[in-house]
Amino acid sequence: MNRTQKIEKIFEIARHKHKLDIQRKDSQRLDPYYYLKEIALEVDEVLEELSLNNIAHLEDELGDIFWGLMIAIEKLTSQGYIEGFDRILERVIKKYEERIYPLKGDDEDYEIWNNVKKQQKLELQKEKERRTAKIE
Amino acid sequence: MNRTQKIEKIFEIARHKHKLDIQRKDSQRLDPYYYLKEIALEVDEVLEELSLNNIAHLEDELGDIFWGLMIAIEKLTSQGYIEGFDRILERVIKKYEERIYPLKGDDEDYEIWNNVKKQQKLELQKEKERRTAKIE
Repeated sequence: MNRTQKIEKIFEIARHKHKLDIQRKDSQRLDPYYYLKEIALEVDEVLEELSLNNIAHLEDELGDIFWGLMIAIEKLTSQGYIEGFDRILERVIKKYEERIYPLKGDDEDYEIWNNVKKQQKLELQKEKERRTAKIE
Repeated sequence: MNRTQKIEKIFEIARHKHKLDIQRKDSQRLDPYYYLKEIALEVDEVLEELSLNNIAHLEDELGDIFWGLMIAIEKLTSQGYIEGFDRILERVIKKYEERIYPLKGDDEDYEIWNNVKKQQKLELQKEKERRTAKIE
């Protein structure tokens, strides 16, 4: 399997899980809040395993963060909070290309980063206003 | 771009960032601990934005979790802590297929889940022992 296929497989498992949560009327697990909180807990578990020669446990716990994020994204998409995973990937590329490619590897980097960050914050607010205007 | 290409692009940006952190001798950002901690902080930011009709900010913050995880994985791989992203994806598929596909969507699910979880914990410990034996 290539990466696209692996990730599609993970979403397939996440969709199956979501259907079972609906069938079981599991209100806790139908709330995206639950899975997002889980991600933060998994971070602590990764930190506990953070040492060399501990590949199996470390990859396993990093996988739990990835799974938590994928299942949260699946639930948020199916409940209409977001458009989906591909839009998130595109946003990451745009955001971090804009922030990182102007850097030079010296102490000016922090200022460059913060200036781009400010600009991006404004753009995001504008996008929100455009979207809200469309709804009303 | 398909998903594999988008994710490869994100790793390319992460690798570039890691090089700049090395060049800047930024000890804080060379420590994978820092980026893992960042993921937990980003979860709180997603939770703050969690409402309907807030697609732009919500996708942006979910993207920050994804980015935090990708850059942590890039750093952990390059520093020899883990084998890499593909192994993590394969582990997620195996772990959650084993846990989720036997479920039936009723209250027995929790017991089935916990039994598989126990078994998986033993297997992980065995894998660790095999790997440690190889090193010694």
